[in-house]
Amino acid sequence: MLQLYFSPMACSLASRIALMEAGLEARYRVVHLRTKQVVDDDSDFRDVAPKGAVPVLVLENGERLTESAAVLQYIADLKPETGLAPRLGDPDRYRLQEWLSFVGAEIHKAFLFPTFWYKDDGSLAKPRARIPQTLSVPSAHLADREFLVGNGFTVADAHLTWALLLLRPAGVDITQWPSLAAYLERMQERPVVREAIATEMALRKTMPANAA
Amino acid sequence: MLQLYFSPMACSLASRIALMEAGLEARYRVVHLRTKQVVDDDSDFRDVAPKGAVPVLVLENGERLTESAAVLQYIADLKPETGLAPRLGDPDRYRLQEWLSFVGAEIHKAFLFPTFWYKDDGSLAKPRARIPQTLSVPSAHLADREFLVGNGFTVADAHLTWALLLLRPAGVDITQWPSLAAYLERMQERPVVREAIATEMALRKTMPANAA
Ligand SMILES: N[C@@H](CCC(=O)N[C@@H](CS)C(=O)NCC(=O)O)C(=O)O
Ligand SMILES: N[C@@H](CCC(=O)N[C@@H](CS)C(=O)NCC(=O)O)C(=O)O
Repeated sequence: MLQLYFSPMACSLASRIALMEAGLEARYRVVHLRTKQVVDDDSDFRDVAPKGAVPVLVLENGERLTESAAVLQYIADLKPETGLAPRLGDPDRYRLQEWLSFVGAEIHKAFLFPTFWYKDDGSLAKPRARIPQTLSVPSAHLADREFLVGNGFTVADAHLTWALLLLRPAGVDITQWPSLAAYLERMQERPVVREAIATEMALRKTMPANAA
Repeated sequence: MLQLYFSPMACSLASRIALMEAGLEARYRVVHLRTKQVVDDDSDFRDVAPKGAVPVLVLENGERLTESAAVLQYIADLKPETGLAPRLGDPDRYRLQEWLSFVGAEIHKAFLFPTFWYKDDGSLAKPRARIPQTLSVPSAHLADREFLVGNGFTVADAHLTWALLLLRPAGVDITQWPSLAAYLERMQERPVVREAIATEMALRKTMPANAA
């Protein structure tokens, strides 16, 4: 069975959503990101993934795949019929990759990660000043579109949904971008998305503070 | 003809290397990243790409593709016979995506970008403190491998080569990681890589300061 190392409400939420939308069974293994402990057996997460970061997907052959952009495409390609990614060879596949990179680099690494992981000793002013320009890009794109890519829900939507969810605790009010706020509401109306979030929010209450 | 909007020695260098390794002709259009001017006709780069960032690849059908991870895979897939990316459906394609994400998020956005774009008002200490852990990942991987993925040069190598080149001006001495230093030397022995760097270094001397 597939295994997903995750932490509640961390970026691995997108991979959980992808697995659930694809109807794939998986064993979900919680990681304490600050202590690098795998909760169920108290083992050292760094032995699983030297990067020390979630998501890590353990494949059927035992190999471990990291990086949301890769994990999400891998999951989508296990069930091409679900449309979670445009088929290989479809030009829209590059649009999917473009959005996965944008969310992972420009929203997550440029802003959410420093916000949750670095103390605010002056290091956060610059990333924060940049975020409106960054968010204007998906905001304009979604002004007249229901989904990021094509006409259906893809793993890029799973990724962006997670990022938008985390913006509020990061101090960014996304109602400034009505198309983003409306999009997030739409995404949260999906039963799978709602269930994934509810599961991780409940779990998070049982754990010490974690982050993006 | 394909067009690549780039800036000398910015992350678009990887896309230039990919185009040249693929033997694809392209029109290269220089952008001033600080003023957002396209140099050849003084037009506003934001009209081409609201993100205001390079690389932007203009496809044969006129569409514009952004984000290195997407642009690099697009270029590689135009010439699958060059092996610049594992073929669609090859499990190694996910390894390629994993490295593209890692370089784009963990080295570029987490470290190089803030280093070159944000004034050092205290905002750089945290990203700098993290970089040794980050670099230990490709360092360990390349200890017994010539290339990041499989047995040949891929666009992931183009991406990492660019990132390693920029680490020195960013104040990180990569000789601390002998396998990375050796890898960078090997990559620079490739005629295309050498030529691409020489072209952009020469061009950069004619332009005001730019950055990652
Ligand atoms: N580039 C990675 C980022 C992974 C990442 O930063 N994960 C965070 C949680 S959202 C983490 O595990 N942080 C712990 C750490 O970096 O020590 C991806 O896209 O998957
Ligand atoms: N996530 C993007 C990053 C692009 C990027 O940051 N490009 C830099 C040059 S290396 C840039 O154009 N910066 C100008 C700006 O952001 O205003 C990618 O991977 O292509």
